[in-house]
Amino acid sequence: MIEVHAFATPNSVKVAIALEELGLPYELRAVNVRKGEQKEEAFVTLNPNGKVPVLVDDGFVLTESAAILVHLAERTGKLLPSDGESRARVFEQLFFHASALSPAFGNAGFFKRFSPDPQPIAEARFATEAERILGLLDRRLADQAFIVGEAFTIADIAHFGWLWRRQFPGLTLDGRPHLSRWYQTIAERPAVQRAISRVEALVPAA
Amino acid sequence: MIEVHAFATPNSVKVAIALEELGLPYELRAVNVRKGEQKEEAFVTLNPNGKVPVLVDDGFVLTESAAILVHLAERTGKLLPSDGESRARVFEQLFFHASALSPAFGNAGFFKRFSPDPQPIAEARFATEAERILGLLDRRLADQAFIVGEAFTIADIAHFGWLWRRQFPGLTLDGRPHLSRWYQTIAERPAVQRAISRVEALVPAA
Repeated sequence: MIEVHAFATPNSVKVAIALEELGLPYELRAVNVRKGEQKEEAFVTLNPNGKVPVLVDDGFVLTESAAILVHLAERTGKLLPSDGESRARVFEQLFFHASALSPAFGNAGFFKRFSPDPQPIAEARFATEAERILGLLDRRLADQAFIVGEAFTIADIAHFGWLWRRQFPGLTLDGRPHLSRWYQTIAERPAVQRAISRVEALVPAA
Repeated sequence: MIEVHAFATPNSVKVAIALEELGLPYELRAVNVRKGEQKEEAFVTLNPNGKVPVLVDDGFVLTESAAILVHLAERTGKLLPSDGESRARVFEQLFFHASALSPAFGNAGFFKRFSPDPQPIAEARFATEAERILGLLDRRLADQAFIVGEAFTIADIAHFGWLWRRQFPGLTLDGRPHLSRWYQTIAERPAVQRAISRVEALVPAA
C-alpha cells in the first residue's frame, strides 16, 4: 500500500497527480505545514529534512517530490520515456524545475509575504527570476504541446505543481499565452482534478 | 566527441568529474561567467537559460548539471545503480542537492558578497539553511562511506561540486567530521583531481 504524507502544497500535489495519472491506489496522511507539523519529531523521524511530501511504499520511505515522480514512473514504465533524447529532456526539465523554478517561486513568496522586515533587493531578485522562468517556459511551449514534446510526462507534473500555487509568489499567466494554454490543458485532466481535490481536502475547515 | 561549455564553477566541475571518472574523452570550452559570457547571444542560443555547464554530445545539447550526470551514468551503466532502493536514493539526493543545497549555497554567497545593499534577513535565511544542510549531510555520512551507501555515485559528484566551492557562501567543514572525511576521500580521487585542474585552467591568468 502506498501512503503519501502531504498537504495542499506545490510539491505534494505533484505526487498525488502522478499517482492518479498512473491509477495507483494511495492514502494521504495530512501533515499540516501551516502548524509546523513537518518539523515535529514524529515527522522528522520519517524525513530528517522536515519537508512534505514523503512516499511510503510498502515500508520504503522516499522523499523529494521529483525523486518520487521518477520512482513512480520507472516502477510503472509510464510518464517518462525509457530512453533517447526525450528521456534526457525530462530530466533536464525536472532539474530546471528543482534548481530554478521551485526556489525562485518559494523565495519570491517568502520575501513578498513573510519576511519580518522588507528586503527589497531579495524580493526583486526572486520575483525577477520567477518572471524570467515563466518566459522561458512560455517560449518552450510555443511550438509543442507539453514541456518535453507531444507527450505528457512527469516534467509537466512537476512544473504544474508550482504553477497551480502561483498566487503564493504573486505570479500570473497574463501575457504568457502558450503557458496559459498548457496550464489549462493539464488542469482539465480528470486525474489532475482528482489529485487537487484530495490534497485540498487535507486542509482543515477554518 | 563530447564538448562541455564550462567554467570553474560548482556545477561545471560536476560534469568534468563524471567524465573523468567514466574515462570518456571530452573537450572543455571556456565560458567566462565573470565577464557574463553566459548571457551573450552565442551562448544563449545553446542554452536559453544562460547557465553553464552545457554538454554537446555529437550534436545533442543538454543543460542542467544533474541531468547531464544522469545522462552520462545511464549511457555508460556506471555511477548510478540500475534499479532498486539505491537508485531511488541517488535521485533523492540529486533532487535534494538541486532544490535545497544548491540554491542555499548560491543565495548565501550572493547576499554575503554581491547584494548592492545589506539584506540581513535574506543573508541569515540562506546562511542558516546552508548550515542546516551541512548538518544533514554530516549525519547521513556518520555510518556510510558515501552519500548513498558504500558505493560512489553521481550523488557524491553533485554534492562535491558545491562543497568544493564552499568558500563562496562562506562555509567550512569545521565541526562536521563525517562530511570532512567524505570530502577528503573524494578530493583524493585521481579523476576528481584531473577534473578540478582542467576546469581551473579555464580561468584566464590575472
